[in-house]
Amino acid sequence: FAFVDSKVLLKEKLPCKTFTLYLHDTLFNVTNAANATSSAVTNATGISNFQFGTLIVFDDPLTLDQHILSSPVARAQGFFFYDMKTRYNAWFAFSIVFNSSEHVGTLNLMGADLMNQKTRDISVVGGTGDFFMTRGIATLRTDAVQGLYFRLKMDIKLYECYY
Amino acid sequence: FAFVDSKVLLKEKLPCKTFTLYLHDTLFNVTNAANATSSAVTNATGISNFQFGTLIVFDDPLTLDQHILSSPVARAQGFFFYDMKTRYNAWFAFSIVFNSSEHVGTLNLMGADLMNQKTRDISVVGGTGDFFMTRGIATLRTDAVQGLYFRLKMDIKLYECYY
Amino acid sequence: FAFVDSKVLLKEKLPCKTFTLYLHDTLFNVTNAANATSSAVTNATGISNFQFGTLIVFDDPLTLDQHILSSPVARAQGFFFYDMKTRYNAWFAFSIVFNSSEHVGTLNLMGADLMNQKTRDISVVGGTGDFFMTRGIATLRTDAVQGLYFRLKMDIKLYECYY
Repeated sequence: FAFVDSKVLLKEKLPCKTFTLYLHDTLFNVTNAANATSSAVTNATGISNFQFGTLIVFDDPLTLDQHILSSPVARAQGFFFYDMKTRYNAWFAFSIVFNSSEHVGTLNLMGADLMNQKTRDISVVGGTGDFFMTRGIATLRTDAVQGLYFRLKMDIKLYECYY
Repeated sequence: FAFVDSKVLLKEKLPCKTFTLYLHDTLFNVTNAANATSSAVTNATGISNFQFGTLIVFDDPLTLDQHILSSPVARAQGFFFYDMKTRYNAWFAFSIVFNSSEHVGTLNLMGADLMNQKTRDISVVGGTGDFFMTRGIATLRTDAVQGLYFRLKMDIKLYECYY
Repeated sequence: FAFVDSKVLLKEKLPCKTFTLYLHDTLFNVTNAANATSSAVTNATGISNFQFGTLIVFDDPLTLDQHILSSPVARAQGFFFYDMKTRYNAWFAFSIVFNSSEHVGTLNLMGADLMNQKTRDISVVGGTGDFFMTRGIATLRTDAVQGLYFRLKMDIKLYECYY
């Protein structure tokens, strides 16, 4: 093998792999256990009126288009919580779990979901299986909010790929 | 230094460092504070019967063999939570903390613990001290479950090492 | 592009970017909502007397000097929890969110806050915007503790930078 000085790397314009997934989240409200895919496990604290401190665990289907009933190609498993006093803002950490004829493996993501921005980036910090050791960026967009349901559009761009 | 195009990297067959650790977790049940190493900090929600939403904080000893009374070579400090409606499934984030004559430093890990699979991989997303800036994969295996106790076998394989 | 064998990399002595930030955290105690920047969302469990299991969500200002009233250059958004039975010890995951004329983007960090050590390192596992895909180390120091307030000095050293 070669010793490589990795201190400074070129900021690639083009990712080595890119795809778009839609995340569908339906919050549990006690009566909808059959359809719900997420559940709050802590209560908001009195520090603000914007759910500061509410932590939500989720196992959400991911589809290739906007339709919640489309066949899921993967699942997003993890949690987020609200963390701002003056408006809604969140922080996410989760895995995208693939287990299909096309892909087996996971992507691991974390970062701030700056909900007041039209798009916001979080980090893909690792991967396993078909996504062995990958790194990249996921660009999130709120695509729909309706009562207990929200949909995120996620543009996944991987900039370090191992083959 | 050299500018390096890191877009595509070779998927190494052999890691630069590899070792196996056994994680011993004993859940607190109110009466066993002396022996317990983890504690649930949220309650399961009514969304399912598989502990969905229970979040557990742990500080677990890691040993080189399966025996819980062997001298720990490190500790695993972090949390996991259950996140599936239809069976047990979990998500982990934690640090492996070394502080011995052999190793000082930490490894930071996160990922989905797909409990229905015999082995499952999570990401080593960083390291400090002797494990400066490392990345890799940890392969988890449920090695024992007995009441409040479980043991995980963790095969750690580091694919990016700095010397 | 070039295929690069990244198995073994040189441990750089000098980071490609380095800066120091002070984190100011003021815990919510029901009466101080106006000033508080963090809030406990779970209760300590009976496993120990050192807050084991208390999880705290925060949105803390970051300044260039020690003064809490200095103009924040970024915010730290995330959570930590206490995780040791025999003394205070914590685990952190958070984003540093820049949104100024100087920097736009985020750094994502996680790791063990070994509170009994004068300095301790956690991992910078990714970045976005001006900190696209970066990695590095943050060295934490407890700089002040006063009632509900604590201040951390964070020396951020990035060892992988993309330009």
